[in-house]
Amino acid sequence: MKQRALISVSDKEGIIDFANQLVNSGVEIVSTGGTKKALQEADIPVISVEDVTGFPEILDGRVKTLHPNVHAGLLAKRNEGEHIQQIEEQGITPIDLLVVNLYPFKETIARNERTFEESIENIDIGGPAMLRAAAKNHQDVTVVVDPQDYNRVAESIEKGLTTELKTELAAKVFRHTAHYDALIAEYLTKQTGDSFPETQTFTYERKEQLRYGENPHQQAAFYTHPLAGDRTLANAEQLHGKPLSYNNIQDGNAALEVIAEFDEPAAVAIKHMNPCGVGVGDTAYDAYMRAYEADPVSIFGGIVAINQPVEKDVAEKLKEIFLEIIIAPDFSQEALEILTQKKNIRLLKLPFDQRPKEKKVTSVAGGVLIQEEDRLEVHPADWTVITEREPSESEWKDLTFAWKIAKHVKSNAILLAKDEKTVGVGAGQMNRVGAAKIAIEQAGEAAKGAVMASDAFFPMSDTVEAAQSAGIKTIIQPGGSIRDEDSIQKCNEFGIAMVFTGNRHFKH
Amino acid sequence: MKQRALISVSDKEGIIDFANQLVNSGVEIVSTGGTKKALQEADIPVISVEDVTGFPEILDGRVKTLHPNVHAGLLAKRNEGEHIQQIEEQGITPIDLLVVNLYPFKETIARNERTFEESIENIDIGGPAMLRAAAKNHQDVTVVVDPQDYNRVAESIEKGLTTELKTELAAKVFRHTAHYDALIAEYLTKQTGDSFPETQTFTYERKEQLRYGENPHQQAAFYTHPLAGDRTLANAEQLHGKPLSYNNIQDGNAALEVIAEFDEPAAVAIKHMNPCGVGVGDTAYDAYMRAYEADPVSIFGGIVAINQPVEKDVAEKLKEIFLEIIIAPDFSQEALEILTQKKNIRLLKLPFDQRPKEKKVTSVAGGVLIQEEDRLEVHPADWTVITEREPSESEWKDLTFAWKIAKHVKSNAILLAKDEKTVGVGAGQMNRVGAAKIAIEQAGEAAKGAVMASDAFFPMSDTVEAAQSAGIKTIIQPGGSIRDEDSIQKCNEFGIAMVFTGNRHFKH
Repeated sequence: MKQRALISVSDKEGIIDFANQLVNSGVEIVSTGGTKKALQEADIPVISVEDVTGFPEILDGRVKTLHPNVHAGLLAKRNEGEHIQQIEEQGITPIDLLVVNLYPFKETIARNERTFEESIENIDIGGPAMLRAAAKNHQDVTVVVDPQDYNRVAESIEKGLTTELKTELAAKVFRHTAHYDALIAEYLTKQTGDSFPETQTFTYERKEQLRYGENPHQQAAFYTHPLAGDRTLANAEQLHGKPLSYNNIQDGNAALEVIAEFDEPAAVAIKHMNPCGVGVGDTAYDAYMRAYEADPVSIFGGIVAINQPVEKDVAEKLKEIFLEIIIAPDFSQEALEILTQKKNIRLLKLPFDQRPKEKKVTSVAGGVLIQEEDRLEVHPADWTVITEREPSESEWKDLTFAWKIAKHVKSNAILLAKDEKTVGVGAGQMNRVGAAKIAIEQAGEAAKGAVMASDAFFPMSDTVEAAQSAGIKTIIQPGGSIRDEDSIQKCNEFGIAMVFTGNRHFKH
Repeated sequence: MKQRALISVSDKEGIIDFANQLVNSGVEIVSTGGTKKALQEADIPVISVEDVTGFPEILDGRVKTLHPNVHAGLLAKRNEGEHIQQIEEQGITPIDLLVVNLYPFKETIARNERTFEESIENIDIGGPAMLRAAAKNHQDVTVVVDPQDYNRVAESIEKGLTTELKTELAAKVFRHTAHYDALIAEYLTKQTGDSFPETQTFTYERKEQLRYGENPHQQAAFYTHPLAGDRTLANAEQLHGKPLSYNNIQDGNAALEVIAEFDEPAAVAIKHMNPCGVGVGDTAYDAYMRAYEADPVSIFGGIVAINQPVEKDVAEKLKEIFLEIIIAPDFSQEALEILTQKKNIRLLKLPFDQRPKEKKVTSVAGGVLIQEEDRLEVHPADWTVITEREPSESEWKDLTFAWKIAKHVKSNAILLAKDEKTVGVGAGQMNRVGAAKIAIEQAGEAAKGAVMASDAFFPMSDTVEAAQSAGIKTIIQPGGSIRDEDSIQKCNEFGIAMVFTGNRHFKH
């Protein structure tokens, strides 16, 4: 008996060649709608699906293939006598090969051009039903959802596919339907405003298999959300250099988070996901030089993000040290010529506008923690001076600067800043005064007159004492400890001005 | 005209009440299989789906509802004259309410009791097809996939559902089908051995809405994988205390990762995801006392995991300080009586056996990084002594101990250990020698004769010099720097023994 294929594809790439190969292998083809038309125009003999179902296409194509003559043809087990007898009694011909792909729902909703009703109208019902039926019965039915598999299937259709290939194709189908429905679910759930529904299904597309993960013995890959805009690292344009590594992507992401705090020209250097130097200035050059001078040791092998186009002057400075990546909204031709002389540097271009708020997913054993990003805006007008001394105007400026960065330093974090640059970064410590000591030691003489920012409240007054010894005269912290009064009293004693923001910024 | 409902449910909870409410509201009911039987036994009038389709149930139930009389009944738009005319011509009655839920695929595969073929046989084709059709047409069709929605729907069925409720129900349906297919995709993809396929869809069930995320201004929730075993924090039994917070879960997870390195009695204290004290010993008491003494300051407000049942002796010690959580495989009755006197402590019980390797998902803007967990086992036999002096037997013991922990300290990490306890932890630093200085300062006198472990290679010999000044006599690190020779030479000069493991352990 002739093998029968049912073909109904949205993406018509390669379908004519594939259908011709099938016909040459003695397969008869059933088709419908636009696919049928395309095949017929290529002189490929096609049986109309209406002739298979004996049922007209109705409801603007909503119901074409949702018919037992199709589904029993897909679902009958070939090695079960009863199944075969039942479909024979009903005059149903088995379908041996199903070739279906769906109009991507991400295209439907990508540009917000369609109304809700139009988007919903684009949800395919018949296609996924057939795909799922065929994939369930993949022992007997070959199912192809990806045009890239046409050749492999065409080559083995006559002698029969291996079990491995059949399973692989079926797995791909369920990945496809899961991906498709996950996007629809996300779209519909957004309409309902429910941030944490009873189940959540996150779907991603592989952008790149990475050489390895955080370490060479860990396999890894970079996956992007189907609707990731061009404002994210995921879709940055790489102008030069080797592919990004896992750690590059994490660090680059950390750099973008810090730089997003600043509208004025700013530069940030990142090492191990922490900012090691941040500077702002009137120009990109000023900003970068401050970020560099903040810690000329740690920046070595780091990542630099600058929120201004990189011109010749900055490029020449960047070239002087070893950097893994430079991220900027643009690079001048001269800057590119200078920087591309370095083989090991990676140059990434992407727009620095604010990107939409996303949910953060973090694996823990057995599940994930899901939270909103920490995008709390910095509003100095809401802060409270809780000491006798008020900060001076220039201290306010440094406080604001320091607070914007302290948010992005791993907890416990203490950050020292002066004159629009960081001078000491105490990151990732298990006790707060320990973080302060690290920041102070790094700052050295520069601690004198610097401001101190703490990502969480002071549990005791010891950090104030450390600040005083180092010559720090202004402190910003959330407040809220039951022993705040001890710290305030110490500040008043030392003539230190202290500001409470009311908001903690842990980051791990 | 009478409203018509089609009911086909795997979970029969509440279905009789709901169907009775529907009948009382003048709804006629179509049903099939086990649901039909259950309704009939409750004396609820039911139309058989075969009478709707005029087609027999065939292929062991694989094809029952995949029929235009069902699907056109679900998909016809009520406000489009042509649609209504077409279904009337075909003699198809509109279906106004669809009540379907699926046998959970996670139950199918949960215990590995079923063969591959049996699992595949359990994949529902007809149910998801109807659910998706009704949810697409949710403007006109009410679709209920969750028994918890029966009451709300029953109450508004006569006067008609609001658009908001219809959208909410439709969103739930696509979450359900996405969740269902994501699990099938995961199951099938595992068979193919493909770790990083072209798309990945991760699905989770909400375990708990959390009070907030890392900070009070971030909403958050804890979701678990449908197949998370009882060996994960996700399914730990909480014996006492307030619900876990976001930061508790992250820290608890970090604690479990460290403790998994040890077969002998071990205790670990965690703060901000870093181990601040780790000890091993002959008993739980010895192990805990060492973990405590390692850093009696940082442990305050931390999390402690002990891989032994907690008895009275340990409980009394634990009670002396403020701890957020204690995690152990068990607590004796006496220990519970002691510890539950503290209102603010949380007690978690879970088996400490090795849990299966999972993929780690980490959000970056626009996507996720996916990597295998770092589960590289520690094999001292594979390490190389690259200095003139060899470590002594007790130094080997400390080296092994230190290496197991350094893996779990945030990078750059330097860890000092002596006599089966940590004495200095330099975590999360932007340069390596900085991490060494922190660890050394913390250790103080205890640095003398301690071993030093570094999660990555020494880019320069400065860390060896710092070790020498502190009286450290043994170092373990991956090796692999182009300037390894400088460090080796310094070690030989100082009489330090240094071991290369060949494996880096970055962790961020």
